[in-house]
Amino acid sequence: VSESEPADPVAPAAQAAVVDLLGMLAYGALVAFDRMAADARLAPDLRRRAALSEMAAREMTSYRRIAGRLTELRVDPEQAMAPYVTALQTYHEQTEPSDWLEGLTKAYVGEGVADDFSSVVAELLDAPDRDLVMDIVHDSRHADFAAQEIRAAIAADPRLANRLSMWARRLVGEALSQAIRVAGERPALTALVVARSPDQAAVQALLKRLTGEHTTRMAAVGLNN
Amino acid sequence: VSESEPADPVAPAAQAAVVDLLGMLAYGALVAFDRMAADARLAPDLRRRAALSEMAAREMTSYRRIAGRLTELRVDPEQAMAPYVTALQTYHEQTEPSDWLEGLTKAYVGEGVADDFSSVVAELLDAPDRDLVMDIVHDSRHADFAAQEIRAAIAADPRLANRLSMWARRLVGEALSQAIRVAGERPALTALVVARSPDQAAVQALLKRLTGEHTTRMAAVGLNN
Repeated sequence: VSESEPADPVAPAAQAAVVDLLGMLAYGALVAFDRMAADARLAPDLRRRAALSEMAAREMTSYRRIAGRLTELRVDPEQAMAPYVTALQTYHEQTEPSDWLEGLTKAYVGEGVADDFSSVVAELLDAPDRDLVMDIVHDSRHADFAAQEIRAAIAADPRLANRLSMWARRLVGEALSQAIRVAGERPALTALVVARSPDQAAVQALLKRLTGEHTTRMAAVGLNN
Repeated sequence: VSESEPADPVAPAAQAAVVDLLGMLAYGALVAFDRMAADARLAPDLRRRAALSEMAAREMTSYRRIAGRLTELRVDPEQAMAPYVTALQTYHEQTEPSDWLEGLTKAYVGEGVADDFSSVVAELLDAPDRDLVMDIVHDSRHADFAAQEIRAAIAADPRLANRLSMWARRLVGEALSQAIRVAGERPALTALVVARSPDQAAVQALLKRLTGEHTTRMAAVGLNN
């Protein structure tokens, strides 16, 4: 076996979709790291600051694993990430949190939807990529921490629920407009999602699932959709 | 053996110095994480941004180990870190890097001196604290990365050497004034360093060693003291 062979050869079309997804997840991890590190600075005390900083650091462990897999597939991680830079940057510029709770709500909502999307797409992949993606998305420690903080804050001041609900709706709106843009630009990834049905049924099923799980998550912390 | 006993009982005076040092290192790791994460945003490309982000994440691994040891000694990490918050915050506010190279030079200079100081103090501790501190300070990956970037930048534009040398001298000046303040406020840690000789010889030896190693590091990347 030659060293120059990719570790897991896959069909070119499937590999393009895998690279699209891994590039998105790698850049997503890098940005999540950056945002959580910045949000940690808004923490009301050192204990919470350390907790969020540790969660940010874990994103880089995910990044390392995804970048390693891309390199194994002979794809430069930097190139695989490039298509997502503008969309994610625009999203974050449009949704700069003004305090600790807005930051946590943003992370809670955004990671929830991103994880659900990744899980759906992972089911369409073969091992080892399916396992890698499932592995990375299923760490709920950050969501649990954020949910606990949001719930406690709303319990202490019920008026917060309204402000944070409005904030969450704005986040979803901005995320959706960037997602539509990316979907148009990444045909291989889009094709993977819609491949199972040539009409719009697959996309509608995906949106329904993402929306349903988002609504459940919002309700779980006392926010409304 | 009762669960409520500390894992390694040490004499109260020695323990106070250990807690002082571990508190300083824990907060130092948390701040280094935060600063490197912010500096990563100044990176000229995604490869360098990911490299610095990964190094930032490693600081949280150090933080976790030190916080774990403090908890083992029945000390709240937050309380152990508290004495260093103002000094480190003032230092960083006074020395905000304006670009990627200033950020790297700051990390290179600052971590170098901090690591040297920690190594000197570690030699005065008993195991397992000595081993823990030595373990944490001896990861040179970040210094190597920073040194390589600084050298390459000076090779491409030799005028940079002057600007970055002046910047490094300012960093050392600010760090020294904060270090003197902390030394006055943490008698146990200061006593540990000067314990071996009641006159000023120990402090002078420490300063000489730190200065010498700093000068060597500066020269290694083409900067002058």
